[in-house]
Amino acid sequence: MPSKRVCIIGAGAAGLTGIKACLEEDLEPVCFERTNSIGGLWNYSEKEVEDGQGCVMKSTVINTSKEMMCYSDYPIPGDFPNYMHNTKLMEYFHMYANHFDLKKHIKFHHEILSVKKSKSFEKDGKWNVKVKNLQADSETELIFDAVLLCTGHHAKRFSPKFKGQEKFKGKILHSHQYKHPRGYEDSKVVIVGIGNSGGDIAVELGRISKQVYLSTRRGTWVLNRVGTNGIPGDIEVTRRVFAQIQKYAPASMMNNIAENIVEKRLNHEAYGLRPKHRLFQQHPMVNDDLANRLICGSVIIKPDIEEIQENGLKFEDGTVVEADVIIMATGYTFGFPFLENGVINVENNKVNLFKYAFPPDLSHPTIAVIGCIQPLGAINPIAELQTRWAARVFNGSTKLPSKAAMWENIREKQAAMAKRYFNSQRHTIQVDWIPFMDEVAEQFGCKPNLKSLFLTDPYLAMNVFFGPCSPYQFRLFGPGKWKGARNAILTQMDRVKQATKTRKCHTESSNSLFLKLIILVVDMPCGIIVQKVLSHLKRDVVTQQVNFYIGSQNK
Amino acid sequence: MPSKRVCIIGAGAAGLTGIKACLEEDLEPVCFERTNSIGGLWNYSEKEVEDGQGCVMKSTVINTSKEMMCYSDYPIPGDFPNYMHNTKLMEYFHMYANHFDLKKHIKFHHEILSVKKSKSFEKDGKWNVKVKNLQADSETELIFDAVLLCTGHHAKRFSPKFKGQEKFKGKILHSHQYKHPRGYEDSKVVIVGIGNSGGDIAVELGRISKQVYLSTRRGTWVLNRVGTNGIPGDIEVTRRVFAQIQKYAPASMMNNIAENIVEKRLNHEAYGLRPKHRLFQQHPMVNDDLANRLICGSVIIKPDIEEIQENGLKFEDGTVVEADVIIMATGYTFGFPFLENGVINVENNKVNLFKYAFPPDLSHPTIAVIGCIQPLGAINPIAELQTRWAARVFNGSTKLPSKAAMWENIREKQAAMAKRYFNSQRHTIQVDWIPFMDEVAEQFGCKPNLKSLFLTDPYLAMNVFFGPCSPYQFRLFGPGKWKGARNAILTQMDRVKQATKTRKCHTESSNSLFLKLIILVVDMPCGIIVQKVLSHLKRDVVTQQVNFYIGSQNK
Repeated sequence: MPSKRVCIIGAGAAGLTGIKACLEEDLEPVCFERTNSIGGLWNYSEKEVEDGQGCVMKSTVINTSKEMMCYSDYPIPGDFPNYMHNTKLMEYFHMYANHFDLKKHIKFHHEILSVKKSKSFEKDGKWNVKVKNLQADSETELIFDAVLLCTGHHAKRFSPKFKGQEKFKGKILHSHQYKHPRGYEDSKVVIVGIGNSGGDIAVELGRISKQVYLSTRRGTWVLNRVGTNGIPGDIEVTRRVFAQIQKYAPASMMNNIAENIVEKRLNHEAYGLRPKHRLFQQHPMVNDDLANRLICGSVIIKPDIEEIQENGLKFEDGTVVEADVIIMATGYTFGFPFLENGVINVENNKVNLFKYAFPPDLSHPTIAVIGCIQPLGAINPIAELQTRWAARVFNGSTKLPSKAAMWENIREKQAAMAKRYFNSQRHTIQVDWIPFMDEVAEQFGCKPNLKSLFLTDPYLAMNVFFGPCSPYQFRLFGPGKWKGARNAILTQMDRVKQATKTRKCHTESSNSLFLKLIILVVDMPCGIIVQKVLSHLKRDVVTQQVNFYIGSQNK
Repeated sequence: MPSKRVCIIGAGAAGLTGIKACLEEDLEPVCFERTNSIGGLWNYSEKEVEDGQGCVMKSTVINTSKEMMCYSDYPIPGDFPNYMHNTKLMEYFHMYANHFDLKKHIKFHHEILSVKKSKSFEKDGKWNVKVKNLQADSETELIFDAVLLCTGHHAKRFSPKFKGQEKFKGKILHSHQYKHPRGYEDSKVVIVGIGNSGGDIAVELGRISKQVYLSTRRGTWVLNRVGTNGIPGDIEVTRRVFAQIQKYAPASMMNNIAENIVEKRLNHEAYGLRPKHRLFQQHPMVNDDLANRLICGSVIIKPDIEEIQENGLKFEDGTVVEADVIIMATGYTFGFPFLENGVINVENNKVNLFKYAFPPDLSHPTIAVIGCIQPLGAINPIAELQTRWAARVFNGSTKLPSKAAMWENIREKQAAMAKRYFNSQRHTIQVDWIPFMDEVAEQFGCKPNLKSLFLTDPYLAMNVFFGPCSPYQFRLFGPGKWKGARNAILTQMDRVKQATKTRKCHTESSNSLFLKLIILVVDMPCGIIVQKVLSHLKRDVVTQQVNFYIGSQNK
């Protein structure tokens, strides 16, 4: 029997690994990519990109670390930085694509015009795909056995409209159109929205512009790339041991702990950032430079905009500032404009998909959405796992649950999300990394079996449970098992260290437990306690003085 | 009797306050400034500056916070940022100069050609000063009763010569010539030297250049502007209570504690920065962005240079990199080229001055050097205190100790410095902020008397001892006492907070002591302990495996 043909739409991070997953499951992938390159939004381009085509800024650095965001059977070399610049990430994608010989399956300069159920869909689940060859300017219609939608979730710019916006004499653009800081020297810039793009642009322009204002309705929690003791932050926290604790501990306690830890770097209240919602109720910002820009005053936090005026803006607190440029870092809405109506309906970024991949109502599970999730962690490994699963569903090795079971799961997820996150179109595809990876892995039997691992390889099991939950863990068991996974896990911290250890040092830090204890007492509490005592004292003294003054007035 | 005339050389941070101090002590100041503006090195200029004229980079932000670096009787407004950009600092200098009406005493565009003892020096201590009016192109010779040298310690670029330097085809410049990042986009840059300039340029170019290498012979300790809980770092640590502890505690313990605290943000060993010397043995770098640049790999730490080649450099560890630009951030040597030989001899940045101000051997104490110190803290308040002292010495209100006593003090200081710091021309004018301020204040009776303060105003005394040791403390007692000082001290934290609290927040952080205790246990140690356990385990397991393998080979 000839192998089934899978249409993969997009050759970005998800599309690439989609090709590989198909090949591994004896499917024949045909990947269509609109641009001339792999890498999707990571492929930086100087030229203005069209709406619908994701693209990073020139300076964008990924905010998940290399051991946590790599493909599960292809570790990133030790000498690559822990957090990679987009050019370095592109280098990795090319290495991956070349190593597994994926590029020959990609048709560059091909745009998908439409994807529709074939006439025989109810019988065989096939799809009609209309493709345009942008170079030859020709259209073709093809039939595929299955479709992987790897177009990501940065499909369409979203910009709210503010009162008075049409009067503004300066420039208004969407963060999607912001490329590099050239041209913004000495201007006054207002950035609207405090997601990762807003934060990145703010700190970049904060160095060169005259003044940057960062306007936020809700505030945000700011996490750091550089975690405690210089370890990548996600390496530090993405561990099964913590996921277990988080599963059973009360949410408010977890929030208290996490918030207090991030506040040691940046007092969110004192810096005007503190939101009403708790840390785990929102997709956080990752930004290591913001605290420094705020303490230098080059970036100033502002509340929501009340109205835009001719030469500036008025904020909700009544303050007015001058502005030359307004950048809307207000995110994206996703969707699949080329897809036949009714297959996957997206409304206000809400979508009904089983594990964010399969539409539950189709008579044949021959289409899957890949990487359309927003994890507290790296997207790449999730996309990879979804493609591995989808490929097995496509070739029939793995079955989906019943329609009813899928709907139940979807509704449970939506209810949990509504309970946990504040209602916003930012929080419709939010997942926790480890639990979600496990859920997808369970679908086709590659979830690491910790019990058996503790019996057969206790050292590895310790690393899997207490160490960083890196993607290699999903290559230890089941279909797609990779014999290099054990070694990749045991050497991951070496690769983390190799990246920054570029000069030999001759001494080591004194690390006695006694000293650590002294520091625990001295470090954080000391300043705080002194400050608390003083501020309490002060309030009383001021009160006394006021009383005294009033008293003496009355005499 | 007509008041004595004092020649003040330079209208920077030290010269300005010198004018004010002279006026307060009934002296007549005449300040000569080579450029067209006050502010000295803080007066950023686009045009190439000549060697001998200090100048910041366009993006330079001061690395001491406003409450710690302000003049002692002129607090910086609450809405000014805690760490000010050079333009903001210039705004403050102008406010200060206008408020105290200092500008009318400044002759701009006047360069000092020579300062020589007058013929009658042994009798009256007067000085002959030859001045050039740069606009009129005319020279005058004037006689002054005293001279304040306020030219700072960034007098002359220092650049070591490396093997093969002449072969290099790219561009070599001194950090003094570096102005802004324009023109360095996409180039490969090597920065030599890891002082504050080197660090500042590295993180600035790290955002836009293709690759930045930061070469250091010794490594360094990196401190942060943003201290624990977002408080300015110097506000957090510059407190009399800590100075007292540091005075009596063993140096190694203090180093251990301080190093462990800074390592929580940036593991100096893992990032190749850790030097052989201890934290308090060196003038540290203040840089909040470096850790992030290093973890992103946009800045790579390298050891010392072995040789410069045609298109790149070879480092001591044998690695070779390509480079388009080499920036020597290798500091300055100071000196007073216009001053008569023998008055103040500077050799390799070493100078014999009583409290870094008065040459001890002159028959009349009518010349003083101001601000030629490198404190672990702000220079401005020290310069101010030195001018207040010098003005009183000039007008006879305060006497210097005997020549022998001064020499003894100088020798003690040099011996202490040689013992503590590593031998380098960076460490010849190094002082600890609080002890040195107290020493100078003692010379003319304005050192805060804590004992009497505890009896008369215990609340203020608490703030003086436990709170930040801000310059206002030196206006509480003695000559120059300022009645606003008490209030300035009691409101300093309000001004610190006002700067960043630009948006209202609706919730506060949960701050129970119980929670803090949990976090103490969870936060820092958790990752460390897990990592330690794993790394120990690993070593053993690896050993076992190796043994097993060897064993099985021998069978």
